[in-house]
Amino acid sequence: MDERIHRHAEVLVDWSARIKAGDDVVLRVDDGAHDLAVAVAEKLGERGANVLPTYPSKEVEAAYIRGHDGDFEADPEFELAMLERADSVLSLRGQCNTAAEAAAPGDKRAAYKKSRQEARAARLATDWVSTLHPTRAHAQQAGMGYEQYKDFVYEAILRDWEELADEMANMKDLLDEGSEVRLVKEDTDLTMSIEGRSAINSAASVAYGSHNLPSGEVFTAPANPEGEVYFDVPMTHDGVRIQGVHLTFEDGEVTDWSAETGEQALEDVLTTDEGARRLGELGIGMNRGIDRFTDSILFDEKMGDTVHLAVGRAYGSCLPEGEEGNQSAVHVDMITDMSENSWMEIDGEVVQRDGTFRWEDGFEE
Amino acid sequence: MDERIHRHAEVLVDWSARIKAGDDVVLRVDDGAHDLAVAVAEKLGERGANVLPTYPSKEVEAAYIRGHDGDFEADPEFELAMLERADSVLSLRGQCNTAAEAAAPGDKRAAYKKSRQEARAARLATDWVSTLHPTRAHAQQAGMGYEQYKDFVYEAILRDWEELADEMANMKDLLDEGSEVRLVKEDTDLTMSIEGRSAINSAASVAYGSHNLPSGEVFTAPANPEGEVYFDVPMTHDGVRIQGVHLTFEDGEVTDWSAETGEQALEDVLTTDEGARRLGELGIGMNRGIDRFTDSILFDEKMGDTVHLAVGRAYGSCLPEGEEGNQSAVHVDMITDMSENSWMEIDGEVVQRDGTFRWEDGFEE
Repeated sequence: MDERIHRHAEVLVDWSARIKAGDDVVLRVDDGAHDLAVAVAEKLGERGANVLPTYPSKEVEAAYIRGHDGDFEADPEFELAMLERADSVLSLRGQCNTAAEAAAPGDKRAAYKKSRQEARAARLATDWVSTLHPTRAHAQQAGMGYEQYKDFVYEAILRDWEELADEMANMKDLLDEGSEVRLVKEDTDLTMSIEGRSAINSAASVAYGSHNLPSGEVFTAPANPEGEVYFDVPMTHDGVRIQGVHLTFEDGEVTDWSAETGEQALEDVLTTDEGARRLGELGIGMNRGIDRFTDSILFDEKMGDTVHLAVGRAYGSCLPEGEEGNQSAVHVDMITDMSENSWMEIDGEVVQRDGTFRWEDGFEE
Repeated sequence: MDERIHRHAEVLVDWSARIKAGDDVVLRVDDGAHDLAVAVAEKLGERGANVLPTYPSKEVEAAYIRGHDGDFEADPEFELAMLERADSVLSLRGQCNTAAEAAAPGDKRAAYKKSRQEARAARLATDWVSTLHPTRAHAQQAGMGYEQYKDFVYEAILRDWEELADEMANMKDLLDEGSEVRLVKEDTDLTMSIEGRSAINSAASVAYGSHNLPSGEVFTAPANPEGEVYFDVPMTHDGVRIQGVHLTFEDGEVTDWSAETGEQALEDVLTTDEGARRLGELGIGMNRGIDRFTDSILFDEKMGDTVHLAVGRAYGSCLPEGEEGNQSAVHVDMITDMSENSWMEIDGEVVQRDGTFRWEDGFEE
């Protein structure tokens, strides 16, 4: 077995999920993630945890949903009982076909998802972590060869997370203390308030309130955006490619929008509800192990030298006690490249220019 | 997908497990059983059942056991809670490597198994069914090509079970009403008492108290064997081939034994405890879809025109109320071919001669 799979397992179990003896661990094994499951199971054994492997294969799930009449029973007790008693749920993503869910009709898929809300909440109440085992199908989706894609994935995952967490703490401190963020680049000059909000140092560990491996971003919940912003990194939303998005904000709301590709899909997002035209997230990608777009949000939004904004729902953990933040049925991330001819200011002070942060060598005010 | 996989799924869900709307079904998917899981999940959806797929891969389990120090926590609550609330547990066997468990040391494997006794009991308290999806690894173990092995497996599974159940009822009636069974062939003349015992018509359905697909045997718990018996069908016990076993019974106990192959392994079985030298089961194989030995007890013991005897533990369901039956740590089946130069008597009356039963055409008293 590729030695990197064992290192991946160790990072997942020790750094990300902080598994200890006696923990009850649900191990969700996708249909292409078998090898990582073997490596993770061995580590869980070494730590003295208990393990229950489940098989959330999208191909099996789609067959079930396709067969069903669509009137799904809400949160069957036998599944809920398991999740409610679990300490950790580790999701080993890695499909043999990333389009597998297309085998079931969209309306039944939505009904199934809706019927599993308590199960989802029970999973999110554990020390859950999602990660990805590289498969040929994911390489295909990224437009890469398999070996090259594996190199890419492990470059993103097998980092010195402690060091990156320390570096990201600089950005968290600046955001926590600041009141206003400004982004400037071609077709972009956007200000937004971060007054009173707390940033999350998303360092791929439950100890940092971070549940994705890889991670490597600092994010907060901005308010009252004003100005314009251009997103040059492509994205796929509900199977549709969207690229070259330009948004104009007035009084905190999107008042004008355009996209070079997928404008109708963008319009569908923005007209979902009122909250879909306000911002839910400002994130600063700081994982320089991720150096290219691979059409997977787990990786794309953490790319070094990028910033992303999400329209829609805000994360409660960024908000002051008692404040609700932006509400919406959607949360759609859009990414802009900050590596060249660009800067970010906090309260009038430049904190990143052309991809270099103020605490790094070569930074120019 | 091979159309027979869909038919297998239908037999499993409808005939064997009798799944109905609202049932909570744990679907145990071995690492080589994915395609059958897809077909079964669709059927479970059609029936309106709830499904939770788990992943009991022996390769993942062996890695966990190997990593662990061997001091396993007994029956973790999160797994038990799931099994106790399940209506059915369907085990889709089908490994990518039938030797996978060899990756963990035997003593730790035994300790792990022992630590999961309540979980096992909870599973056996449901309407559980075990079946097999043909993989290349199982074909290899059977010494067959893959296509040929698939034909063999589906021939055994895709039967008219209703018709076979009716036919087996004849044998059950004879055994239930009879007092003494006698087996006669070369090197074999054995009598045993079946007075007061009930035979199980094992027709591959929970409705018949039968939990294997395929099945196709009628079995009971005999007592007081006297005489000698020769088992010509080979078997594998704990990884060791045993063949050509000859046993002599006096006063209900094995007093002399020999084997052409694996005599030491046979001796290990027979000296396990006192009950290991007494009989636990007499079974009559009646599935004529199974016409050859494939080194898998799920199939071998149901082979048409064979009879098997097990030394060791008896099944409580065959015994009269209040009787304990033979107790032992082992239950080891041994098979003898009854297709030629052989007969079986019940109370002095021949009921099978040269593989033909008394209710069949061509039977000769």
